[in-house]
Amino acid sequence: MKEIKIFSPGTIANVSCGFDTLGCCLDTIGDEMIIRKTDKKGVHITKITGDDLPYETRKNVAGVAALALLEKYDQALDFGFEIEIFKNIKPGSGIGSSAASAAGAVFGINKLLNEPFTAQELILFASKGEELVSNYPIADNVAPALLGGFTLVKGYDPLKILKLPVMDDLYVTILHPQIEIKTAESRAILPEKVNLKDAVKQWANVGALVHALHTEDYNLFGSSLHDLIVEPYRSQFIPGFDQVVKTAKNSGALGSGISGSGPSIFSFCKGMQQAEAVKNIINEIYKKTGIPFHIYVSKINRKGIRII
Amino acid sequence: MKEIKIFSPGTIANVSCGFDTLGCCLDTIGDEMIIRKTDKKGVHITKITGDDLPYETRKNVAGVAALALLEKYDQALDFGFEIEIFKNIKPGSGIGSSAASAAGAVFGINKLLNEPFTAQELILFASKGEELVSNYPIADNVAPALLGGFTLVKGYDPLKILKLPVMDDLYVTILHPQIEIKTAESRAILPEKVNLKDAVKQWANVGALVHALHTEDYNLFGSSLHDLIVEPYRSQFIPGFDQVVKTAKNSGALGSGISGSGPSIFSFCKGMQQAEAVKNIINEIYKKTGIPFHIYVSKINRKGIRII
Repeated sequence: MKEIKIFSPGTIANVSCGFDTLGCCLDTIGDEMIIRKTDKKGVHITKITGDDLPYETRKNVAGVAALALLEKYDQALDFGFEIEIFKNIKPGSGIGSSAASAAGAVFGINKLLNEPFTAQELILFASKGEELVSNYPIADNVAPALLGGFTLVKGYDPLKILKLPVMDDLYVTILHPQIEIKTAESRAILPEKVNLKDAVKQWANVGALVHALHTEDYNLFGSSLHDLIVEPYRSQFIPGFDQVVKTAKNSGALGSGISGSGPSIFSFCKGMQQAEAVKNIINEIYKKTGIPFHIYVSKINRKGIRII
Repeated sequence: MKEIKIFSPGTIANVSCGFDTLGCCLDTIGDEMIIRKTDKKGVHITKITGDDLPYETRKNVAGVAALALLEKYDQALDFGFEIEIFKNIKPGSGIGSSAASAAGAVFGINKLLNEPFTAQELILFASKGEELVSNYPIADNVAPALLGGFTLVKGYDPLKILKLPVMDDLYVTILHPQIEIKTAESRAILPEKVNLKDAVKQWANVGALVHALHTEDYNLFGSSLHDLIVEPYRSQFIPGFDQVVKTAKNSGALGSGISGSGPSIFSFCKGMQQAEAVKNIINEIYKKTGIPFHIYVSKINRKGIRII
């Protein structure tokens, strides 16, 4: 195989209670990428559409992730790779734009090399790409992009990712207000210390959410979607956040929260019809803010990145 | 039925990562209780052996829990109840002594009334007994005593308890150094605020532990038994704590931690033989401290309180 074309999906990190830990994979929102073997050695970004991102390999998350992989590849290569990126996920949207690029690059190169690396290793390489934009090799978006479904980052030393089960009928409505929030900045506003009482409630909800996924309990899943720790700081930067959450809940959503560091807001629903209904009503109320926005419905993607 | 005799088991609250949330039920360590219908109305503690606990109903956790139940019973009773308590679990041991009494009382009375209340309701009543000694109606010991297995307190408002699955071959060795730690005092030493970084690691471990129970992954279960938040404060009051944990690990235990507020130390093991081996080596090293102690091995009890 000389060339591979892939769909690299958006992802929701944190999932309310699981800051820096939980993530899940979207199905209908994502970038496309082409990764190609070339005579020219090294990694070269040769095309970017949809956004104004750097072409320089070491300044592009896909490039950095690709280099992290090749550094661990133990055979000499007499060829290189070029990467074309067709962005649909806006950087700073909170639905894993940089993760899609980083994960896509390592997925594609691994395929072209006949899969020398495991999924856990690919997550590690992709997280090196994330480090470029987040100042930390965070894995909570790249893990669901590569594995699909829901994932839990158990720890970083060593990196250990768990793949959690997914309910068949779980959908999500994503509202993306067109304002940009930089991950590094939205991290800087978080406090170093949190109330022990709040932390206890938070880990009870993380445990309950994992149990809900295993037992296919939609209501328990919904009632676990609370974030007492990070959301109060970040939601203030998202115009209309409280109203969207309340409206979604009143319209039958299981629960809502900030996707990653925002500004996108997710609302999980049981069934596509319910998710479409929530989409329609959020669409109506958000128009009134005057802020441009996109709104999507997606099933949870069980497989992650796919070849197209 | 006029009288019921029960075995009310000890329990391990917190289970390292799940402070105030997780708990599990022991099988071979517990109290016995007799609950009896009497012509005399009200609730009366008529016998206590094994420890010097108050007979006055409102000052005894079993009495307070029993009264909380009767307050919610909507029929007039022309009889009362007497309770005999045969303590084997020392108060202040950290393996749910007060919870065993509180849970046993409501379990017994509910049976004698032909079970008008659900298990979730009994947990609520029993937690009122706990409030007497802990200043809070904590449910993380009474829940596993009443439900068996592993439990997760999802929240208190309203009280919501989840029953988690248990692996068949999971055993625990419990070392109980004979020093008393009062729950209220061991709570007072905890900080109000904790590092967000530590809290993230803690909830990743809670999620991983719940996933491990569902997937019967002993190693993942063991590697989730970390407590960065509470153990550093409480372990200093338990002589030899670090050495016991290290020795258990080196002898094949999955992981160890403080049971409840201590001083008991649990070490989970795969299989009874492994648990017995860990018991023997801890027994040897703990003798050297000069502190009197008990040491037990128990399977995880799937059923909770049982009629004997």
